[in-house]
Amino acid sequence: MDYDRYDRVRAVQWRGDHLRLLDQRLLPQEERWIDCRDAAEVTQAIRDLAVRGAPAIGIAAAWGVVLAAQQGASLDAALAMLRAARPTAVNLMWALDRMKARIAAGAGAQSLEREAQAIQDEDLAANRHMGELGAALIAPGSGVLTHCNTGSLATAGFGTALGVIRAGVAQERIARVFAGETRPWQQGARLTMYELVRDGIPAQLIADSAAAHLMKSGAVQWVIVGADRIAANGDTANKIGTYQLAIAAKHHGVKFMVVAPSSTVDMATASGGQIEIELRDPAELLAVGGRRVVVEGAEAWNPVFDVTPAGLIDAIVTERGVMARPTEAAMRAQFGA
Amino acid sequence: MDYDRYDRVRAVQWRGDHLRLLDQRLLPQEERWIDCRDAAEVTQAIRDLAVRGAPAIGIAAAWGVVLAAQQGASLDAALAMLRAARPTAVNLMWALDRMKARIAAGAGAQSLEREAQAIQDEDLAANRHMGELGAALIAPGSGVLTHCNTGSLATAGFGTALGVIRAGVAQERIARVFAGETRPWQQGARLTMYELVRDGIPAQLIADSAAAHLMKSGAVQWVIVGADRIAANGDTANKIGTYQLAIAAKHHGVKFMVVAPSSTVDMATASGGQIEIELRDPAELLAVGGRRVVVEGAEAWNPVFDVTPAGLIDAIVTERGVMARPTEAAMRAQFGA
Repeated sequence: MDYDRYDRVRAVQWRGDHLRLLDQRLLPQEERWIDCRDAAEVTQAIRDLAVRGAPAIGIAAAWGVVLAAQQGASLDAALAMLRAARPTAVNLMWALDRMKARIAAGAGAQSLEREAQAIQDEDLAANRHMGELGAALIAPGSGVLTHCNTGSLATAGFGTALGVIRAGVAQERIARVFAGETRPWQQGARLTMYELVRDGIPAQLIADSAAAHLMKSGAVQWVIVGADRIAANGDTANKIGTYQLAIAAKHHGVKFMVVAPSSTVDMATASGGQIEIELRDPAELLAVGGRRVVVEGAEAWNPVFDVTPAGLIDAIVTERGVMARPTEAAMRAQFGA
Repeated sequence: MDYDRYDRVRAVQWRGDHLRLLDQRLLPQEERWIDCRDAAEVTQAIRDLAVRGAPAIGIAAAWGVVLAAQQGASLDAALAMLRAARPTAVNLMWALDRMKARIAAGAGAQSLEREAQAIQDEDLAANRHMGELGAALIAPGSGVLTHCNTGSLATAGFGTALGVIRAGVAQERIARVFAGETRPWQQGARLTMYELVRDGIPAQLIADSAAAHLMKSGAVQWVIVGADRIAANGDTANKIGTYQLAIAAKHHGVKFMVVAPSSTVDMATASGGQIEIELRDPAELLAVGGRRVVVEGAEAWNPVFDVTPAGLIDAIVTERGVMARPTEAAMRAQFGA
């Protein structure tokens, strides 16, 4: 199936001697590109959320290592700096481990460039494949709800959860798409709606807190989300609010699908309780769009991820296949160790 | 107990020949007062959310009738206009019915003024009483989560759910307060935090979607919310997101309390399914703080209330007492008809 018309954005672009990133903090009002010319600038872009989305972070970090190699900078220092840029997304560690293994094997800059390109190309291919696998689970005429942004902006292209939605819409299985706005950073409102409108996929934005009311109305049959880290027992860390959606989905008999490349699976983490949840600056909640909305003196608690236990997940879709109702044994069989 | 230090805001003030309203759209950045000089201006203030909160809407509407009477305007027209200002809050209808009954009994402007003052005074007294009743349910050292704004800004003073929190803090039963920001209108972020900071009650703001993650952490024992309408079977309409909180609370064994004056109870509405849910302008989701955050061409679905079924409610607190696990029979016994 030709999905190209549903996939027009490329946010991470390698330009031979620098990395171009579409600055996701400014979308959709402004399409401004950032040129990162060394590993420190890539680290900064990851930390400041100019590039975000677990797979895209991993890809950008791999290119950061290439820049360090081209410039003869310390590769150990580059790896350490990039690794510390964000704590929750395991794809970051996975991509850097791949680069590190090539470095240990004596690879030079050109060889590292090929490895980073492979990481990027494989991610796009995996997303296309996951799109097909996930869409096959969805009955024609369904409504779906997604959270955060898991599209072309968050990956090498096509997207994970949004890739399933793209494939499902193209195959006319999905009739209605809803996107949660995803406070505090509004990835759903700003980024997912941007991709969907650009690709001509009809969709409606909702407040995150309207999801249960939407489910009760019968308008959605699946909640489809991405992941930042999947533990060995299937527990899944993803954007704050995912857990709440999973509870509401279970309450209403709505199915819950996690879509992520196998690089998101972290078999070294036994369960979700061991995943470090990133707490970000309370200021993200106290101001909206740069304007203070909360009285001076107020405090806020701003965890940006949460963990959805495996028991609330109906299917984990990776490029290796569909795992229905994930268990530790099934996870071990599919992802080893 | 002296609660005055916990209750410093009065948003609805009668000034003899006009009604002063604290414009809640501008808080907390600006404390601007609006003077309403006729019933049409009061209607406008209700419709535009300058005054909001089910009890405060009812009180303001009663004063709108007084203004019409003072000016010799058509009282029928004033009643009809005010009644149509917002559809979900039943207190609006209740207060207007009280005024209408006085009109039918031949009351003049002075007598109507006394009736409106009684509505306002009774609301404050009811809130103080409900605060005591609700706080008595809370074990010392508890954490609580509230939603939207149900405080002095939403009532004649003290508040409903926030009144219970004020009383609970004063009695040292409540050790930690969390407030959901309450998209799209940010009543929690803008108004509840404003009241709490002003009254020196330590509290933390959270994203609405962080509530389940917070509950899982064990930090809250009660969710405490207000109501816009309570049906004859105990089903409760309240700010969008309340239903989702109730589901998450049940999932975590966190208790769920609804606090509202008995004027919020609508025995003529058999169940929540019959409550009209107000859909507001999608623009409220597409822009934040007046700034467009979503791409042009995007659509949004913006219900601003939802219904929490009685089965998810542990206690309904009115000034008539505490109803544990509301049922139709218990509701009929307490509220008649």
